[in-house]
Amino acid sequence: MSVYTTDYIGVIRTQFTELAGMPVQPAGADEDAFEGEVIINEALAEGLRDLDGFSHIYLIYHLHKVTETKMIVIPFMDTLERGIFATRSPSRPSRLGMSIVRLLEVNGNCLKIRGADMLDGTPLIDIKPYIQAFDCPNNPSCGWMSASREDVRKKRSDDRFV
Amino acid sequence: MSVYTTDYIGVIRTQFTELAGMPVQPAGADEDAFEGEVIINEALAEGLRDLDGFSHIYLIYHLHKVTETKMIVIPFMDTLERGIFATRSPSRPSRLGMSIVRLLEVNGNCLKIRGADMLDGTPLIDIKPYIQAFDCPNNPSCGWMSASREDVRKKRSDDRFV
Repeated sequence: MSVYTTDYIGVIRTQFTELAGMPVQPAGADEDAFEGEVIINEALAEGLRDLDGFSHIYLIYHLHKVTETKMIVIPFMDTLERGIFATRSPSRPSRLGMSIVRLLEVNGNCLKIRGADMLDGTPLIDIKPYIQAFDCPNNPSCGWMSASREDVRKKRSDDRFV
Repeated sequence: MSVYTTDYIGVIRTQFTELAGMPVQPAGADEDAFEGEVIINEALAEGLRDLDGFSHIYLIYHLHKVTETKMIVIPFMDTLERGIFATRSPSRPSRLGMSIVRLLEVNGNCLKIRGADMLDGTPLIDIKPYIQAFDCPNNPSCGWMSASREDVRKKRSDDRFV
């Protein structure tokens, strides 16, 4: 078997209905203006128990509006061509998106989040807690990406991956 | 459509052939003893360009040997029951695993990594670069998970998710 298949576990609700003009990563959207909701299928709501103790969570989702796969791209935060796996660009073979968002509230099967950098209606595949002891490597080097969190905050997407 | 489907992009080679006795996350495997290889399908090797500038990468993979889905689990690093989405346990609906590993070398379509905490033969779905400006939230709170990186290093998996 060389194909992976899974059911969606829910959907992400945001203010964004088109791929241009969006924040680049939750790092560019850590403001009240970028709140959103995650609605989990009710049959899975029990699995959200204890999630409210975490301030940040990974959302792993399907970049469902992307149509082209490219091996070489110019990422939003750069001006040069890069290999797709050295970027977070959406035109990747898997079409998997990943965002670390701030978790504001859990209400039954509904999460309120800040840092919503995805399209409204994006299908959700998994949620994982952000765990500092697992997820924060010491002194990482980050290749071509020299922009600061502040640079990211000022950046918006354009239509290059539509 | 309520199903996500994608092709594997490669395979992960490690020393582990069974699910018990493994490190818990790459944080428990940051030693020479836990090196492994990632072999990318040759048709996608061009997409690895520039990846060698990054010291750490996310591997997103299929936990292909897990057979049971559970909404409530006792994670390896805890003694109490938790909701599956508040843990990194494998019995999750998506069967998606995620590890931040150290990238030691890129040779054509083959990556040498350290922090290999997955089974040998694990099918790979995506690679993303670890980018500090995106991936390192300030002062995260981490719920039930009070263990330090050092605690994680001492821990090994057992057969609870087999």
